[in-house]
Parts: sequence; structure tokens; C-alpha cells
Amino acid sequence: MMKKVEHLGFAVSDIRAAEQTFARLLGQQAYKFESVEREGVTTAFFQVGETKIELLESTRSDSAISKFIAKKGEGMHHIAFDVEDIEAEMTRLRAEGFELLHDHPLDGADNKRICFIHPRSTHGVLVELCEEKKD
Amino acid sequence: MMKKVEHLGFAVSDIRAAEQTFARLLGQQAYKFESVEREGVTTAFFQVGETKIELLESTRSDSAISKFIAKKGEGMHHIAFDVEDIEAEMTRLRAEGFELLHDHPLDGADNKRICFIHPRSTHGVLVELCEEKKD
Repeated sequence: MMKKVEHLGFAVSDIRAAEQTFARLLGQQAYKFESVEREGVTTAFFQVGETKIELLESTRSDSAISKFIAKKGEGMHHIAFDVEDIEAEMTRLRAEGFELLHDHPLDGADNKRICFIHPRSTHGVLVELCEEKKD
Repeated sequence: MMKKVEHLGFAVSDIRAAEQTFARLLGQQAYKFESVEREGVTTAFFQVGETKIELLESTRSDSAISKFIAKKGEGMHHIAFDVEDIEAEMTRLRAEGFELLHDHPLDGADNKRICFIHPRSTHGVLVELCEEKKD
């Protein structure tokens, strides 16, 4: 079950410039910057209510964010739902016919186990499931 | 001040099909369908935590949703933040250099007064402010 919108990922070309823009928009600085080497991104996080805004800048020309910006420009990239039990949710969604991008959860930024659903399953919306690591 | 992510708008080609997809994804039916004639859209709403998911299908070829889908395909269209005092927030954001699409708040779906910010002000992200009507 999807408990809340855990975060929203926005693809940006220049994370320092974007951080300043969203800081002015939201009236707060990013509380954290974090790099995820495997995904080739640098991220910045804001908190609004129960949801985080995650800015993503590509650090490699072959990253998913790089390809997204080349195709669609900067903008909203994905939505992540908080789930209690990611394996159970993956099993449920597979049975419902959704196309998951991974067989098993991956380690994501921000102390999460994650799984993406292919946007062709979800009317063009890239959906991420994420479960907070307990340990 | 942005209090929470009030809703997320997803542009879809066929709202009945999309409603079924997101119902399976979220494990719940849409709780409401609503048409907004002025904007040329039919909408369907889901609730996840404190945030609504709003599916938007165009009812006119010249609507913003129609143009968005023609250019970028189905997908995430906008993010709406809940604000306490929309006029005060519009004044603050204008002074911060953001380009607002309206001089005064408009009546939106779901009993809201709303204002959009041009995505060229916000790294390609279409941002909506919305204030719940008090009366």
C-alpha cells in the first residue's frame, strides 16, 4: 500500500542554480546534498509537509537524468511512494501487470530501498517505490 | 509559505483507462471526477497521505493539457503547493522574480483559488499555488 508521496524528483541541469531557485520558491535552503555514484547523479533535498523535493543533476552523459533532459528538458522526473514492505508491494504490482525495472529492490539515496516501475505501465509517469531501511 | 504538496497533476490521454491503471497502482478507486470547463479538462482525484493525485484529460484540442501531451507525451504535468494566503504568496514570489501566469488568483477545481508560475521560472517544473476557499 502507498502510504504517502515520499518524494518528487526534478531533473535539473545545474543543481546549484536550481537549489537557489527552489530555496526562493519554498522559502528554505536544501537540507542535504548527496551523490549517488551508481545512478550518476548529485541530489539536493527540501522538505515540504510530509514530502521531499529531490533535485537531480546528472554527473555522467549516459545517466537516466542526462537522457531525460536531452529528450524532454528540465522538469518533473519521477514520483516516489513510501511503502511499508517493498517486496510485498513489488509482488502485488507484478501480479497487477505493472512492469518493474528491477527483480529485487536496489539501494537508493537517503537510506532507502527502492524499485522503479516503467512509465509505459503508468501513462508516462515514472513511479518509484521506496521503503525506509530499518537498520 | 508552502505548507504541503496539495496535489500532483498528471496529463493523460484517456481518463477512464488511466483511472483504472492508477486504481490498481494505488489500491483504491478515484474518489471524485470533476470537469473544469474553463480549462478544458476532466479530472479524477485520488488521495495518498496528505497529497492528492489529479489525473487530467483534455476535452478540447486547444487546452493546456492537449498541448502538453502533443509536445511531451502523457506524464507528470504540475505540482501544486498548499498556501495559507495566496495573495501574500503571489506578492512574495513576484518580488523574488518568479513569473506568475495570472495577476489575481483564479477559481480552480476542488474548491481552490489558484495561481500558476511559468515553468521557465522554475527549471521546467510547472508550479501551482492553491488556497482552500474558506466560505
